[in-house]
Amino acid sequence: MRPMLILPLLALTAAAPATKPKTPADVLAAAPAAAWKTIPAEDLMVIDLAGGTRVVVQLAPAFAPVHVANIRAFARSGWWNGGKAAIYRVQDNYVVQWGRNETEDPMPPGVVKLPPAEYHRRLKGLTVRPLGYPDQYAPRAGFALGWPIAYDPKAGTANLTHCYAYVGVARDLSPDTGNGSELYAIIGHAPRALDRVIAVVGRIVSGMETMSAFPRGTEALGIYKDRAQDIKIGSVQMASDLPAGQRPSFQYLDTQSASFAEYVRVRASRKDAFFIRSAGGVDLCSAGVPTRATPAG
Amino acid sequence: MRPMLILPLLALTAAAPATKPKTPADVLAAAPAAAWKTIPAEDLMVIDLAGGTRVVVQLAPAFAPVHVANIRAFARSGWWNGGKAAIYRVQDNYVVQWGRNETEDPMPPGVVKLPPAEYHRRLKGLTVRPLGYPDQYAPRAGFALGWPIAYDPKAGTANLTHCYAYVGVARDLSPDTGNGSELYAIIGHAPRALDRVIAVVGRIVSGMETMSAFPRGTEALGIYKDRAQDIKIGSVQMASDLPAGQRPSFQYLDTQSASFAEYVRVRASRKDAFFIRSAGGVDLCSAGVPTRATPAG
Repeated sequence: MRPMLILPLLALTAAAPATKPKTPADVLAAAPAAAWKTIPAEDLMVIDLAGGTRVVVQLAPAFAPVHVANIRAFARSGWWNGGKAAIYRVQDNYVVQWGRNETEDPMPPGVVKLPPAEYHRRLKGLTVRPLGYPDQYAPRAGFALGWPIAYDPKAGTANLTHCYAYVGVARDLSPDTGNGSELYAIIGHAPRALDRVIAVVGRIVSGMETMSAFPRGTEALGIYKDRAQDIKIGSVQMASDLPAGQRPSFQYLDTQSASFAEYVRVRASRKDAFFIRSAGGVDLCSAGVPTRATPAG
Repeated sequence: MRPMLILPLLALTAAAPATKPKTPADVLAAAPAAAWKTIPAEDLMVIDLAGGTRVVVQLAPAFAPVHVANIRAFARSGWWNGGKAAIYRVQDNYVVQWGRNETEDPMPPGVVKLPPAEYHRRLKGLTVRPLGYPDQYAPRAGFALGWPIAYDPKAGTANLTHCYAYVGVARDLSPDTGNGSELYAIIGHAPRALDRVIAVVGRIVSGMETMSAFPRGTEALGIYKDRAQDIKIGSVQMASDLPAGQRPSFQYLDTQSASFAEYVRVRASRKDAFFIRSAGGVDLCSAGVPTRATPAG
């Protein structure tokens, strides 16, 4: 069967001639190198699954500094290594969750057992690019420091949002905030009701297509029925602890750049051939912030 | 490793005592039988994958009558049976796509080769329950006939939306509208920019957790590289053509019912224990329309 190619390409393609309406991919392909910011190696968590797949998470210390410090401490102590941690929960249209029960052993040094509720931060100090369209979950939506954010100018707060591929800290009921030993990533439509209810600490920048495709768990909450179904984690390391030549490197599109502004504009009003109509709007998570592997050279 | 149960349960659970704030699941559990509408068997398409998994799609003849008639004609002629059709495209955070290249053989009788662009319908004749929150993609969002819709009171139009698990008709570039031989379902964050650009014809009411978890294709658009990777379809039948005792049966929550109104209200303002804050809003696809297997007896 010869497949019919029908839906618009979301991946990068070569820039179209100037006479054609631009696609989001065209905008990214045309963005100058200066519009791409390289993510510091100390913000990249490298998860190697036992099966060989590598997953890379960009952490967001500007939004959840204590949780991120905990996650780095767990990684550096080898807390999740050698089969002690696994993916054990996959709930359809919701989350994939992994980690290690932190009650098993003494915490590694440096881990804060009960971090503060870093569910939002001060808006002050952030240079925000407004999305320009309404948000159902907050007074305003926009972008800052390379992240999608929701914010409240009156309250003076800003928070990371539960978009696809975004990573949060699993917790029990309040006032527990989770310590970072167990994490989840969003694998479905953005469950934005979780915003400011759980700490969002980053996003998956590589390996998401593996994390989203594990078999769904059949027990309550999508937990795997048998521990034999768990997907074992081989190791978790910070990229900054890897030898220089072996560090993965990723970039995000500077949310203050002209390229990013154009990217959001084009996302909100597709005019390329397939799109016989433009919506004239876009939601925060559909706009998103593009990331990529740092180009060679 | 004993997993930590931390995220709120989206599945049905027993109703909580009246003193506790209700969850969406509580509202569904308390909904009277009369609030659930049984889907007509002629609107249920039953897809049996070669591996044994059954997927059931509810079709929406009130929104795309010609496309739905085509799909029924394809199913009744056995067009997709016996290994001639497959799932051949899985693009992460976007779509799973299946079908059979309709240029291979003469069309089955009754199939309209170039259906009209049923991307929206007249608003007139629909009893709409407004969502009550803004939408980024249309002047208004709400619900009618058991479906989430976007609508434009000035233009007098209403359309089905690309929410998670919703099914559309693959097509080539305009003015092709697709004939229904190849279909897709949304497996990620709602790509609402596709609304009114492609015909939405229904939603998956059973088997979605299988459809969303197939390995992602590695070629452009998520196409599988080798045809050997395709997931073969065993048969596609309309439920109404199955013997009475073997017909699957599903229901949706009447979007005009008091239970549905309460369901949306609770979705927009979670107050159960885990939710230390309520968003005070919800987007159309996060609200959604609950469906279930028809209870026995």
